[in-house]
Amino acid sequence: MTGRTPARFTADDYRARMERAVRAAGDAGLAGLLVAPGPDLVWLTGYAPPAATERLTLLLLTPDRDPVLVVPALEAPDAAAGAPALTLRDWTDGKDPYAATTALLDTGGRYGVSDNAWALHLLRLQKALPDSSYASLTEALPMLRAVKDAAELELMAAAGAAADATYEEIRKVPFAGRRESEVGADLAGLLRRFGHSQVDFTIVASGPNGANPHHEVGDRVIEHGDMVVLDFGGLKDGYGSDTSRTVHVGEPTDEERRVHDLVREAQEAGFRAVRPGVACQEVDRAARAVIADAGYGEYFIHRTGHGIGVTTHEPPYMIEGEEQPLVPGMCFSVEPGVYLPGRFGVRIEDIVTVTEDGGRRLNDTTRELVIVD
Amino acid sequence: MTGRTPARFTADDYRARMERAVRAAGDAGLAGLLVAPGPDLVWLTGYAPPAATERLTLLLLTPDRDPVLVVPALEAPDAAAGAPALTLRDWTDGKDPYAATTALLDTGGRYGVSDNAWALHLLRLQKALPDSSYASLTEALPMLRAVKDAAELELMAAAGAAADATYEEIRKVPFAGRRESEVGADLAGLLRRFGHSQVDFTIVASGPNGANPHHEVGDRVIEHGDMVVLDFGGLKDGYGSDTSRTVHVGEPTDEERRVHDLVREAQEAGFRAVRPGVACQEVDRAARAVIADAGYGEYFIHRTGHGIGVTTHEPPYMIEGEEQPLVPGMCFSVEPGVYLPGRFGVRIEDIVTVTEDGGRRLNDTTRELVIVD
Repeated sequence: MTGRTPARFTADDYRARMERAVRAAGDAGLAGLLVAPGPDLVWLTGYAPPAATERLTLLLLTPDRDPVLVVPALEAPDAAAGAPALTLRDWTDGKDPYAATTALLDTGGRYGVSDNAWALHLLRLQKALPDSSYASLTEALPMLRAVKDAAELELMAAAGAAADATYEEIRKVPFAGRRESEVGADLAGLLRRFGHSQVDFTIVASGPNGANPHHEVGDRVIEHGDMVVLDFGGLKDGYGSDTSRTVHVGEPTDEERRVHDLVREAQEAGFRAVRPGVACQEVDRAARAVIADAGYGEYFIHRTGHGIGVTTHEPPYMIEGEEQPLVPGMCFSVEPGVYLPGRFGVRIEDIVTVTEDGGRRLNDTTRELVIVD
Repeated sequence: MTGRTPARFTADDYRARMERAVRAAGDAGLAGLLVAPGPDLVWLTGYAPPAATERLTLLLLTPDRDPVLVVPALEAPDAAAGAPALTLRDWTDGKDPYAATTALLDTGGRYGVSDNAWALHLLRLQKALPDSSYASLTEALPMLRAVKDAAELELMAAAGAAADATYEEIRKVPFAGRRESEVGADLAGLLRRFGHSQVDFTIVASGPNGANPHHEVGDRVIEHGDMVVLDFGGLKDGYGSDTSRTVHVGEPTDEERRVHDLVREAQEAGFRAVRPGVACQEVDRAARAVIADAGYGEYFIHRTGHGIGVTTHEPPYMIEGEEQPLVPGMCFSVEPGVYLPGRFGVRIEDIVTVTEDGGRRLNDTTRELVIVD
């Protein structure tokens, strides 16, 4: 579900993005793009309706006409204010918006559809225009939003700096004797204090909970001697942060320190693999090789990274099989981990952007094992 | 996007709901149901993953086997804890979850799919099982969650009571001289104070803003002499509230009072039309006739109501053309309005549940025009 955020760029910026998207669609053999409320719509137009609903809101981008936003009459005033570069076609309750939409499309064309468009809407479009075909934007144009321009990179860096400030502060709070959920609330408060308008996740995974990479926060009381995985992020001024550090409550054992060093080395190897032209999977391979060579390969149970921008998880994915070459301006996480079931986990994550000759970290707090109280 | 809420019913309750859903699917000529993260999944299983994502999570309900939840390995521990009545089939990054899913389905079968399933997932299922067909749950089984049982009605009534308490308190705050957004923040705070875990909307539409039915809150400073539409709701213990009242800052004009009386009469007429067996559209017609007869028909620009339950907007819809008969246990809004462009708006809304012989309001604060400061 989208949040209402004011447009951050000019009408000209959005017009240029829509033109680029139409050109990219044409190059990919598509007759156009059908964009539902969500990150694609925000990125292309600046418009974020309060929610995706059963009422059809859809941006039509086709080469032969100016962009059209099909929108419920109820939302038309907000859309007119939020998306100045668009022609609106509003429809009222009880009317069929699908017929009105497909009248603007080509029979037999192939259209790219936002990943997160509702199945309800796609099925009705398929019915209204049965001879056309549809591809998800991830499949058809996965890199549509992947390459950030200078203004976007500035916002990404600012979000990363806010995440770094959050980590510097969270190191100072007491851990032992408090619930994970309390430290999680501290993380959320800090992200907001440092300018985030939206907190997407605040993972505090202590002791054995750390071995579940997607554990969020629970009622477990953190104990002296625990490893604690912290993974937190959200949106600041419309762009995402996502950082992980693993801390230890009191002095770690030799094994804990060894596993942490290993993950740090893997993260460094992943980062060092970043440069233009390298395939995404090479970043995954570089990080994974370090962990596998140390005999922990079976305990690194997720991909190495994911893109980030107007959302906190998006293409490109740093995963075996992804041959997409890196391009300057792409932003993604490098976040290897080791998860020892029933015992503890370690993950270290930075957002990295591709530069002309390598990579640049948008998070840069220490990756050494920090001891907390 | 869903929020993480603990399961509110027993594993037996969820099992019974899934069995009923499979039977209803069979009666509707469907080979099964494919349920994505969101309200359908919460209602059927109690499981609410933190977000719907590009990673496939899908509940398969078919008559020939026990319910199966296809779930990313990362989420499997949460799913096992959150959905005790299910068999899990987890998949790891890099594997194809669609092939694994379609292996459990029938070639050539017709499947019901959650409205809010991502287009990305539906398109891949369509590709993996091209001879099957798909219908949205709204189209195929619109009434799946519509009829609430006694335990659900108790939760709906409690959410309504919390909304009523919110209205009683918001009447006491100062309006004139404060921004809409400040009164909106008061509403959100009150909803949470009275037990809401999620606030979905807090509309404060003053003066001319009231003429836009979906205006939320803005920076406009409320003035003496304004009509102010308040429309607020969210989830309390997993069930929804949604109430509107229109208040006036200081003494209203004769016209303002007349329009408010008219909307109140229309709301009463809509409510009185509620009884088992009556078509949804009759509720709309009853309310609309009052407004049309007074010459304001063109200013009532939305449907009269929508269902509510584990979400705040869902079938059944009280709209012309909806012939679904009302059934005891259904819950929906009755919310006519009149919107005079550039001037003001009035909306009055209660949640109503269908009883054995009529309707019962789950909101019951005064519908008279209340004067605020």
